[in-house]
Amino acid sequence: MNKGLEQVTTIAEVRKRVSLAKQQGKRIGFVPTMGYLHAGHVSLVEKARQNCDFVVMSIFVNPLQFGPNEDFSRYPRDIEHDREVAGAAGVDLLFTPTVEEMYPSTVLTTVSVTQVSEPLCGKSRPGHFDGVATVVLKLFQIVQPDAAFFGQKDAQQLAVIQQMVRDLSVPVDIVPCPIKREKDGLAMSSRNVYLSAEEREQALILSRSLQQAQAELKPGALAREVRENIVRTIETQPLADIDYVEILQYPSLEPVTTLQKGQQVIVALAVRFGHTRLIDNEIVTI
Amino acid sequence: MNKGLEQVTTIAEVRKRVSLAKQQGKRIGFVPTMGYLHAGHVSLVEKARQNCDFVVMSIFVNPLQFGPNEDFSRYPRDIEHDREVAGAAGVDLLFTPTVEEMYPSTVLTTVSVTQVSEPLCGKSRPGHFDGVATVVLKLFQIVQPDAAFFGQKDAQQLAVIQQMVRDLSVPVDIVPCPIKREKDGLAMSSRNVYLSAEEREQALILSRSLQQAQAELKPGALAREVRENIVRTIETQPLADIDYVEILQYPSLEPVTTLQKGQQVIVALAVRFGHTRLIDNEIVTI
Repeated sequence: MNKGLEQVTTIAEVRKRVSLAKQQGKRIGFVPTMGYLHAGHVSLVEKARQNCDFVVMSIFVNPLQFGPNEDFSRYPRDIEHDREVAGAAGVDLLFTPTVEEMYPSTVLTTVSVTQVSEPLCGKSRPGHFDGVATVVLKLFQIVQPDAAFFGQKDAQQLAVIQQMVRDLSVPVDIVPCPIKREKDGLAMSSRNVYLSAEEREQALILSRSLQQAQAELKPGALAREVRENIVRTIETQPLADIDYVEILQYPSLEPVTTLQKGQQVIVALAVRFGHTRLIDNEIVTI
Repeated sequence: MNKGLEQVTTIAEVRKRVSLAKQQGKRIGFVPTMGYLHAGHVSLVEKARQNCDFVVMSIFVNPLQFGPNEDFSRYPRDIEHDREVAGAAGVDLLFTPTVEEMYPSTVLTTVSVTQVSEPLCGKSRPGHFDGVATVVLKLFQIVQPDAAFFGQKDAQQLAVIQQMVRDLSVPVDIVPCPIKREKDGLAMSSRNVYLSAEEREQALILSRSLQQAQAELKPGALAREVRENIVRTIETQPLADIDYVEILQYPSLEPVTTLQKGQQVIVALAVRFGHTRLIDNEIVTI
């Protein structure tokens, strides 16, 4: 049982606590986050608690995965709130390192995953997935968990991490967890806090367009046509500025033309509302 | 004590054996090699046995670290001989995976270390150190050793691995081991077997030129002048075809001009004799 949350800030302390838990025969679950926790993160912790005996959560806004014009410095942070949420969710150990603890000197090492990291967000955010792969691998080396839990909201991130873990034989089970949504369908995201009331209202078109598309995702359908219908639906909202809408094979993220029975595809989209870029997706077996 | 050598070929088997040894409280030492073992490798095993309770050696000629015109296919292999040498040296577990076991599908993940991997062999062998960093990290994930042992013969490789381990917080102690030389001074290398009698004779100039240089490596000396003297010495041998001779700071591999007291520098060289490219170096504190 969870005896209450402990918070540590150094690599040495995490390792000490995890090593002790392992000596007690506990299976270690790991939930890496950038904080500003919401019910999506809580669902990852719940899954980790079902699967493991000791749950470590990291909160680290990783500068390596933000581009020069992205929202690293204004990314929302609220560690007091996060500690409460993490404790209530049943996290055993909260790891909140500073940037200096994680990167005490210039990082010369980069982990890159080609192909899966190239379409979708990889196009709009060059270098983003290198930053993700590098920090996730480093966190895995620090925490040395048995299993790690990732939301399917970041479906491409999940595909990149799964590929990295397979290629490098990283001894961590990667457990995908379904997207959590607000009651009205908006996919939960720490960035939703940026939205004005009007943007928030119009952003509902994302989940709605994905839902509408589901009926069209049938054997024999042309991915291009389904995609165009989604684009048209999103464009009914004047504040929506589409970055991409794509239908690809999942998890390889290779192109798809005519949908085939049994094929697994992802319908993925990224849309800006004002300064806020939101992503959403559905993974569907045809 | 060493109860005799066991050989395994799969990732699952290595993990099982290592996990058992860890449960018995043993400290795991790891010696990654490309086989065709010589006294240099044996010295790594000896160091590992002093430092650890259970020694794993891998033999894997890693295709990722060979360029298209390099000697991957003709790299010398003799697993029967290697098994004997490893057993006599006191290796507990020999891991000899096939290429298919290590890379069952196309590897999309690459680990790159900038700066330290760029000069010296990085210039002559583009992509080489990406291949080295990637396979070493993968082997570390497979074996999960407490310590790993590398020869200073491959000084740049060692610097790249040390940087990678630091940047990614890989939980493995990297232990450098001194170069082993034949009685006449030639640095031991699996590639020495390629040399004709005449090439072998002329190749002695490498260690001799490094030894001569030692007397000149004093505070106030100009690295450029010491380097030129080494080049002149090597060029006395007609079969010697210089790839590079460099003096750099170690382990950063940054340029150096006037040598300063207390500075650690490497004198590194790569020279071809016929089709055989040999490397040698001396690391000196001024």
